[in-house]
Amino acid sequence: MNHYQLLVIGAGPGGYTAALQAAKLGLRTAIVERREVGGTCLNRGCIPTKALLHAAQIYHEAQSGGEAGILAQDLQLDLPAMFAHQRKITETLRSGVEGLLRNAKVELIPGSAAITAPNTVQVERDGERRTFTAERILIATGSEPAMPPIPGLELAMTSDQILQGMDRPYRSIVIIGGGVIGVEFASFFRQLGCQVTILEGLDRLLPNLDRELGQNLAQLFKKQGLNVYTNAMVQAVEPGQDGLTVRFQGKTGPGAATAEKVLCAIGRRPAWAGLFPGDLQPETEGRRIRVDSRFATSIPGVYAIGDVSSTIQLAHVAAAQGTACVNLMWGKPVGMDLSIVPSCIYCRPEIASVGLTEAQAKAAGIPAKIGKCTLFSNARTMIANPGRSFIKLVAHSETHEMLGAQLMCEHSTDMISQISLAMANHLTAQQLLLAMRPHPTFEEAMADALEDLIRKLG
Amino acid sequence: MNHYQLLVIGAGPGGYTAALQAAKLGLRTAIVERREVGGTCLNRGCIPTKALLHAAQIYHEAQSGGEAGILAQDLQLDLPAMFAHQRKITETLRSGVEGLLRNAKVELIPGSAAITAPNTVQVERDGERRTFTAERILIATGSEPAMPPIPGLELAMTSDQILQGMDRPYRSIVIIGGGVIGVEFASFFRQLGCQVTILEGLDRLLPNLDRELGQNLAQLFKKQGLNVYTNAMVQAVEPGQDGLTVRFQGKTGPGAATAEKVLCAIGRRPAWAGLFPGDLQPETEGRRIRVDSRFATSIPGVYAIGDVSSTIQLAHVAAAQGTACVNLMWGKPVGMDLSIVPSCIYCRPEIASVGLTEAQAKAAGIPAKIGKCTLFSNARTMIANPGRSFIKLVAHSETHEMLGAQLMCEHSTDMISQISLAMANHLTAQQLLLAMRPHPTFEEAMADALEDLIRKLG
Repeated sequence: MNHYQLLVIGAGPGGYTAALQAAKLGLRTAIVERREVGGTCLNRGCIPTKALLHAAQIYHEAQSGGEAGILAQDLQLDLPAMFAHQRKITETLRSGVEGLLRNAKVELIPGSAAITAPNTVQVERDGERRTFTAERILIATGSEPAMPPIPGLELAMTSDQILQGMDRPYRSIVIIGGGVIGVEFASFFRQLGCQVTILEGLDRLLPNLDRELGQNLAQLFKKQGLNVYTNAMVQAVEPGQDGLTVRFQGKTGPGAATAEKVLCAIGRRPAWAGLFPGDLQPETEGRRIRVDSRFATSIPGVYAIGDVSSTIQLAHVAAAQGTACVNLMWGKPVGMDLSIVPSCIYCRPEIASVGLTEAQAKAAGIPAKIGKCTLFSNARTMIANPGRSFIKLVAHSETHEMLGAQLMCEHSTDMISQISLAMANHLTAQQLLLAMRPHPTFEEAMADALEDLIRKLG
Repeated sequence: MNHYQLLVIGAGPGGYTAALQAAKLGLRTAIVERREVGGTCLNRGCIPTKALLHAAQIYHEAQSGGEAGILAQDLQLDLPAMFAHQRKITETLRSGVEGLLRNAKVELIPGSAAITAPNTVQVERDGERRTFTAERILIATGSEPAMPPIPGLELAMTSDQILQGMDRPYRSIVIIGGGVIGVEFASFFRQLGCQVTILEGLDRLLPNLDRELGQNLAQLFKKQGLNVYTNAMVQAVEPGQDGLTVRFQGKTGPGAATAEKVLCAIGRRPAWAGLFPGDLQPETEGRRIRVDSRFATSIPGVYAIGDVSSTIQLAHVAAAQGTACVNLMWGKPVGMDLSIVPSCIYCRPEIASVGLTEAQAKAAGIPAKIGKCTLFSNARTMIANPGRSFIKLVAHSETHEMLGAQLMCEHSTDMISQISLAMANHLTAQQLLLAMRPHPTFEEAMADALEDLIRKLG
């Protein structure tokens, strides 16, 4: 039987989470995937980069461990082994997801999907076409690296290419783009001893986050020996004797950066080429498929979640939207506050952010106060020594409810949910301070930031 | 002028936090300390052990990094450097605390204190005696390693002695006591390649925590090559040709463990010898100074906080009691829920616990359900590879409010406050699940445990 209650296109974190939720609700569910289960996140994104960052961190710590009494005089990098290890991790996780789908009786249909008519999906594989019908179709095809039309940019690599493996360390690299992907790869290459130059077109690193985060990260990077250029609009990539030269227009005039390799990490764009081969076309917003608050596209019975339609391209957003979309389709409560979205960056120290920044609250006319704490005297920070770390908290001046947080400190990616759940449950700064915080933790600095915040709230 | 509104005895985390809080309230405050500012925690406890554990972790990761492509063939340990580094960290933190006291205009009086009469403290230093009077006296003299009367135990070291420095790695060590101190030192020595045997008198490691934590830790330890004996009552320590032999009574008969060194980590006892040299004596409970709910001893105007009087001996409990005690003395709100006490253990994976266990809820007749999640398929756990990790959550069957949590996973010491603040604010499991959790984090497993919990709650 080729009919499903839900047919999901794309088995990334958004798609497989949605399919599992549908199966949990007892629905006859299928998921189409043309590549590997797990999508970008698992195969070419979050997970492989975190595995590489972890390995690079071990290398860096061993190399600089002399002060702590660890002497590694003959330290070697085996990059094929590092990438093989990374692949082993992603393969294990991938087969875990495949197992979950199998156990949930979600049918996995390999091939490329096309929505040819309402409720109709054609799947092509090795020249063979099969047609499926579905009560509802959910598009979760994700995104792919953006490659803007810059002369010579085809000489640069994308994150996809790097993650396929390196046979030896690079001497030098220019990274175009100082967003999340750019700074994570910058950290990785620098920890392996590579000369790194970052070119960011806007006025700071991580331009989508609080100004202080990007500025502090740039300072830290410079201290670690990276070259960071902001307001640098890339004009061309040119081959030369010493590798590749990236020409850019800087604030004060033209500039150039030369390296063995160039990584283009400008961002990601929605990926749905070929999904609508006929007259049936969804409405769009820019390159995104337009959806309403229930994730419905302009085509009846067709929904979209994740990077293909979302303004925020994050795996956990896709997964949350996937669950929510399925719940909404079948009249179940959403059970999660989708408006509170944490962002995490795995540089060192880690960065995590949620809700409003001080500037955003101001721009929105919301009266807000800021509490702050640097972690200079935080014992675990001093021991781990990741560089300047701080916590910033934002609360409503009148209600004292938490509005947001910007953390730049080790383990912050595991601390940010404390603020997310305070926001989701309308807790005040005073209510957050009720909890006794354990010592010695990174997290105990939260109490200092809260005390500062409460002092400012008066 | 030798009169103060508050005179604190002992400049550990309890004492200096209390003194700083008193200064913040504008009180004329002094603090007496006979050794270093920072107390056990900073000088002979939490901080130096965490610094050593961090160094040992670097060593261990470098040594086992081959799979991740990091080859350290000539890895050496420089223990004098490791201990010097640890001392540098504690010295920096200590001078930070001294600076805080100075800036707050808290007078630091070096010497040994004795309470000779109500409101009167005599401080002796180098044979010289000075007398001070105070409106209120706060005892925060802490604790010291317990050495029970076991024949030959004087041949064993205490944690104090180890932390003074090791000139070379030990080949083997027997650790008497499988509580927090014992398991942290066991982790440290094992990561440095030492043969470790743990002898615990009760039926499991970490007997004060949830049964599953100690049992899992023992399994992990055995996998790592440690010898773990529970129900092992130590009878004697004897010298021999191969070092020291510890004789114990096991469940099935007598046993013996031989090693180069023996560490006695049986626990800590309240330290207040010499504090009351005259007729004036406080009421006690066991070895503890007895206090009421406002931290008042039986002597008017004399209060006690922290290890010297508390049933729970933890730095953050002492600090919280210190602040609360000063606030209560001067009619200020406490601002913290002192009944919710997190415990953290820095083995690998980390352990963190708060509130009731399943067994405790049952024993207290509280209807409770458990939600659980293992972190087998948690991506960051797979990457960090710390061994079996899990999260257990306890909620009230009827109200669905959170009652406790037992975490055994990396970064759990920075995650536990999420549950503490849920408890302090009477949040339900459903309310905790409202927050979107970021990917990939250790912490995202919390969502899986919450989902399991909510399923059980029905």
